[in-house]
Amino acid sequence: MIHKPYLLFLGDAHDQLAAKVAQGIRDWRPQDVVGQLRLPGCQADLKINDLTVAEAVSAGARTMVVGVANRGGVISPAWKSTLIEAVESEMDLASGLHNYLRDEPDLLRASKANGRQLHDVRQVSQAYPIANGQPRSGWRCLAVGTDVSVGKMYTTLALQRELAARNVKATFRATGQTGILIEGDGVPLDAVVADFMAGSIEYLTPENDPDHWDLIEGQGSLFHASYSGVTLALVHGGQPDALILCHDPARETMRGLPGYALPALEDLRDLSLRMARIVNPRCEVVGVSVNTSGLSAEKAEAYVRRTSNALHLPVTDPIRYGVGDLADALLAMSVPGN
Amino acid sequence: MIHKPYLLFLGDAHDQLAAKVAQGIRDWRPQDVVGQLRLPGCQADLKINDLTVAEAVSAGARTMVVGVANRGGVISPAWKSTLIEAVESEMDLASGLHNYLRDEPDLLRASKANGRQLHDVRQVSQAYPIANGQPRSGWRCLAVGTDVSVGKMYTTLALQRELAARNVKATFRATGQTGILIEGDGVPLDAVVADFMAGSIEYLTPENDPDHWDLIEGQGSLFHASYSGVTLALVHGGQPDALILCHDPARETMRGLPGYALPALEDLRDLSLRMARIVNPRCEVVGVSVNTSGLSAEKAEAYVRRTSNALHLPVTDPIRYGVGDLADALLAMSVPGN
Repeated sequence: MIHKPYLLFLGDAHDQLAAKVAQGIRDWRPQDVVGQLRLPGCQADLKINDLTVAEAVSAGARTMVVGVANRGGVISPAWKSTLIEAVESEMDLASGLHNYLRDEPDLLRASKANGRQLHDVRQVSQAYPIANGQPRSGWRCLAVGTDVSVGKMYTTLALQRELAARNVKATFRATGQTGILIEGDGVPLDAVVADFMAGSIEYLTPENDPDHWDLIEGQGSLFHASYSGVTLALVHGGQPDALILCHDPARETMRGLPGYALPALEDLRDLSLRMARIVNPRCEVVGVSVNTSGLSAEKAEAYVRRTSNALHLPVTDPIRYGVGDLADALLAMSVPGN
Repeated sequence: MIHKPYLLFLGDAHDQLAAKVAQGIRDWRPQDVVGQLRLPGCQADLKINDLTVAEAVSAGARTMVVGVANRGGVISPAWKSTLIEAVESEMDLASGLHNYLRDEPDLLRASKANGRQLHDVRQVSQAYPIANGQPRSGWRCLAVGTDVSVGKMYTTLALQRELAARNVKATFRATGQTGILIEGDGVPLDAVVADFMAGSIEYLTPENDPDHWDLIEGQGSLFHASYSGVTLALVHGGQPDALILCHDPARETMRGLPGYALPALEDLRDLSLRMARIVNPRCEVVGVSVNTSGLSAEKAEAYVRRTSNALHLPVTDPIRYGVGDLADALLAMSVPGN
């Protein structure tokens, strides 16, 4: 569990895209952010208060998040004095970089001397159980994709916001580093040891109130040769009641797998449902989320209408049209008489 | 890669079952074993030469394998002097225990002082790539099961022996600790980090001669909530041309999952094939291997006949009837005009 609120460290980001982790936190959890800290030469800007470490601490910040990606995921020497200043000023540090904060001797020393925590969210920091497959109370929704990077996290975060706005109990359950930094908690599933993958997701989504929704961030795709095992562990560990299909109609081949065509949404529906019902026979596919950013407004509308007619399901692009229909579909399951 | 031949260390095994790893090596690779070493009180016996460490070294042994399981998988203090004697006598050590040889300071010290290796085969000892899903030459067969522990390793080892007897190029590709000790090489899949599971299996089964069979040891089951992700990584990383279905007709519920019924063989066939064809459209289910040890000879025969008629596939119990029919089925695929 990472303590909030955050100061978002953008370092010397060479463009806006390099700060996309910080941008995600700022977009999805503005109430958890006191400001940004930019070093000289920083080319990114979240359009929030620029604060020094001392000002952020005064504003209540408890963790400085390294929300910037360097080439190669390394920790830049130019950042060091600010990172050390943070741990010497009563802030923890959190990072999703490939290189770990705790592998930097000066940071480790300073954090220990000041009793601060270093959160490397790509790293597993605890033991998880073997999955037991037993039914548990509460409702769970999982986003699955025809490919990797087709908007699963975005869709899930949008649903959590929509349900919260309707005063429905709902928790975003993060399974990747950006999601974990946004939520402040989660399981870095791609770093979990094989035998404990499904168990880590059971741990992440325990028994809950009978009117509570866990909205589980998806990973990979059952159709993606590199990561399909991770996805199946999510389906079986997450024991979802509802599946949402995610798809990018502009994608021509699977990401990182030249020569592999994307599956049809019908194939994703059938295979995901077949797998999910092994652990939860009441599971249903409730809707589709597509990324139509490459299409004109008219073409996007036509695509959504055509897809909805073909699958007999609500279909949306969360950015163009929101996720109201998907939230309706979840509540139709969980609210008796809805 | 573990150097052979082996001296099999049985320690003070309290019964024959405690030495089942050693028994497996002795059964499947008798040509790789110079003898056994038993301590006073040992209740197991492989019926091979009893050798001291010195005698084993004289006979050419290069590795002493800890082929015995203690309660809790620990390394007994009573074994220590013999283990140290082995590394001081030009032998490496190999173990599949949960507790690692390298975590014993005295063993680690002695092995370093003598330039010997400690192989903890439950532990990953190298980096694996991310799977790329690209087609590769050579033939690959994977055993998949309706449940865990239904004879996948046994069936695969029996097939390797059968093909070798027919002078067909075939390699057993181990994915679990007992298999790795038997073969002397392999990938401890259940200990691999999620993102690299499928890649580790591609690494284990690289391009090969066009008339060569890789016989891949299966793990888990697509239907087993705890381990299904591991199994799917094997299906997608292994890119099998041939699948063999494994089943125990006496099993009533999934092992470790009370309340879960086993799937029908037809379900295993359909789901495995659906998954395998994502990466290899020419994949076929070629046969069924069942464990009929709980049935009388007549009932076993009737079960095998009934199953074969229902699935239109060769069905065998490897222990009762051998795996000749399964080998025929593989060669029918790989040998033109067979």
